[in-house]
Amino acid sequence: MQIVTLTTDFGAGDYDIGAMMGVIWNIAPGTRIVDLSHDIERHNVRQAALLLERSTPYFPAGTIHVVVVDPGVGTHRRQIAAQLGDQWFVGPDNGLVTLMLRLARKGGKPVKIVYTHKRQYWLNQVSSIFHGRDIFAAVAGHLAAGTRLTRLGPVIEDPVLLDFPEPQPHEGGWLGEVMDIDHFGNLEINIHRDLLEGMGPVKVISGGHVLDGIKRTFGEGKPGDLIALIDSSDYLSISLVNGSAADGMPAQVGDAVLVQPVRDADSD
Amino acid sequence: MQIVTLTTDFGAGDYDIGAMMGVIWNIAPGTRIVDLSHDIERHNVRQAALLLERSTPYFPAGTIHVVVVDPGVGTHRRQIAAQLGDQWFVGPDNGLVTLMLRLARKGGKPVKIVYTHKRQYWLNQVSSIFHGRDIFAAVAGHLAAGTRLTRLGPVIEDPVLLDFPEPQPHEGGWLGEVMDIDHFGNLEINIHRDLLEGMGPVKVISGGHVLDGIKRTFGEGKPGDLIALIDSSDYLSISLVNGSAADGMPAQVGDAVLVQPVRDADSD
Amino acid sequence: MQIVTLTTDFGAGDYDIGAMMGVIWNIAPGTRIVDLSHDIERHNVRQAALLLERSTPYFPAGTIHVVVVDPGVGTHRRQIAAQLGDQWFVGPDNGLVTLMLRLARKGGKPVKIVYTHKRQYWLNQVSSIFHGRDIFAAVAGHLAAGTRLTRLGPVIEDPVLLDFPEPQPHEGGWLGEVMDIDHFGNLEINIHRDLLEGMGPVKVISGGHVLDGIKRTFGEGKPGDLIALIDSSDYLSISLVNGSAADGMPAQVGDAVLVQPVRDADSD
Repeated sequence: MQIVTLTTDFGAGDYDIGAMMGVIWNIAPGTRIVDLSHDIERHNVRQAALLLERSTPYFPAGTIHVVVVDPGVGTHRRQIAAQLGDQWFVGPDNGLVTLMLRLARKGGKPVKIVYTHKRQYWLNQVSSIFHGRDIFAAVAGHLAAGTRLTRLGPVIEDPVLLDFPEPQPHEGGWLGEVMDIDHFGNLEINIHRDLLEGMGPVKVISGGHVLDGIKRTFGEGKPGDLIALIDSSDYLSISLVNGSAADGMPAQVGDAVLVQPVRDADSD
Repeated sequence: MQIVTLTTDFGAGDYDIGAMMGVIWNIAPGTRIVDLSHDIERHNVRQAALLLERSTPYFPAGTIHVVVVDPGVGTHRRQIAAQLGDQWFVGPDNGLVTLMLRLARKGGKPVKIVYTHKRQYWLNQVSSIFHGRDIFAAVAGHLAAGTRLTRLGPVIEDPVLLDFPEPQPHEGGWLGEVMDIDHFGNLEINIHRDLLEGMGPVKVISGGHVLDGIKRTFGEGKPGDLIALIDSSDYLSISLVNGSAADGMPAQVGDAVLVQPVRDADSD
Repeated sequence: MQIVTLTTDFGAGDYDIGAMMGVIWNIAPGTRIVDLSHDIERHNVRQAALLLERSTPYFPAGTIHVVVVDPGVGTHRRQIAAQLGDQWFVGPDNGLVTLMLRLARKGGKPVKIVYTHKRQYWLNQVSSIFHGRDIFAAVAGHLAAGTRLTRLGPVIEDPVLLDFPEPQPHEGGWLGEVMDIDHFGNLEINIHRDLLEGMGPVKVISGGHVLDGIKRTFGEGKPGDLIALIDSSDYLSISLVNGSAADGMPAQVGDAVLVQPVRDADSD
């Protein structure tokens, strides 16, 4: 069973999503098509890249992820299709693949990216403003129907990549930053749980707030408390129990977050 | 064809829903997965229980309903899977099954509930805050793939149940209450149409409003009228024609609603 | 593979959509069911008709589109099913089919509409307020399962049609109007790109604004600019670059839009 997922910034009510499904089914009738998210913030390529990192590893090998967050549609940006480990990507070449690519490389898995410029794999008529339907859905349909990746266009080695900074060691702890703020208002930090193992008791400092320790669950805080915890993707996050951290603590993507070991002096 | 439905309070744009689908497909590749609703009010177990009562009876026998409205995730609440008549349930043991269970028992149908604590049916790594993916989706995948219910854990006889009061006879009529307010602002009352049969003309009293009779359709009222009618689930509801009853008449879950026969004295 | 699409004004979180899916699967178990949109503005039959025109042509032949935007439910409006070219429709007889029908006739394709009043193809119990589940989903299920259209009821020749005015020639250009405002705030105009071919340079006039030329992409304007362009459905639209035209330029459905050739006098 071939699965194709759709991720866009169109909003859930948009008819264009249906048109994309129709295009895929016309080319690859047996495909199972599923929505990953259509609520990516408009033109927020970074947010979509994070979503792909966090959800694609759970899909069966061979799943094709079509992603249409495409502020450059109609300009000279390339469109690409890629094998990134055991998952596949189709979309614009604007950095959407950054974290899927990093995951695949860390895992020592195969990576191949092609510039899908061959028009025989597009719809006959291509709008200058809706490549999601006319190019990406059509290309995904051909991949789903068994066309080999390298028939879609030439291999490229220089995909556009976004800058997702890695956290830096800092005074025995880590200096990271807010990567995203989710729709519950949780701040997602670029510090992976692996970095925190063996550190012992810590405090988490951001935006003038000092949070004691990393909780295991929301239940360890009281309603209204700001707490730090490891989220379901194994990254550090800052949450407000029964509320929105983004409300309790004005924050934005890129804000610094410091994790420090609790020293003896601190506990005097 | 095995169908699995998903109901959560994640909001429709959340990537976690995709991760749950991926987990299910990895374990049971041929499964058809469909969203029931992801717009349950956050942590509103009661609202999800009502949604299940109203939609699950329309699904083919054997459909598995995965429900993740889980304010107690990471605490000591149990997780369960259940056969409730010809429908199946997977989710936390917090009362979500209350009305599906009541329906099955009223119909004299088989009921079996197990505490799904066997870790071989979970993902290898279990987050303390996202059991929807790591436990419930995995367990549903195994059920969908043919694992017998009783292999998932021991049968329990004491699931957590919510209090959904039954309406009480009152002066020849019925005293009920508002069970829920839907997203059109309609008040849903716990008085079933069966209780009203043979009563003759009635008035419906709630929140200082007295409504004459029970309409058959919205078309019998004028725009702006508050009307009582039998909703599509065969329960009494109060609606504002072309508007939101909740706006026209401040109300909340639990408010009293009285249905009284119209006596001769009333019509003098 | 039989595909059924669902379009409603229920809102994406509504449990009723799940009930409709269950009804279809009970009658036609192998069907692939997909949401086109559930965010049609409440009771906006016109908006749904436009959505169908723009998305149904992309679906495989034989796809059945169930549409429940039904302000007249419970009144004497008819319910219909129809073959409109190679696409199929099930829903109320209130004008929803207007543009699908026009497309089929323009293409010289077969058209057949029946009044689906035969109760053996409905659910046994029919609510007076939810025909989407009790009539339309059931009828679509029977069509999906192979029941012939003409067994569902008698052929009719007088479906209700909406008035979608065609643009008028005007001083060497075209006088059209705003057909819809999409959820990005783009104004969709009833002037097809075919009408503009060969006109040379034009200006687009609406609501006191004069826009120079028709852009090929959003990228040809600066953020905050109002621009005219051809949208992904090949109709003229007015958009605000990186914003909402509806905010930058108060407009409503039916507003006049004039496309005029740029004359020598204009460029003096």
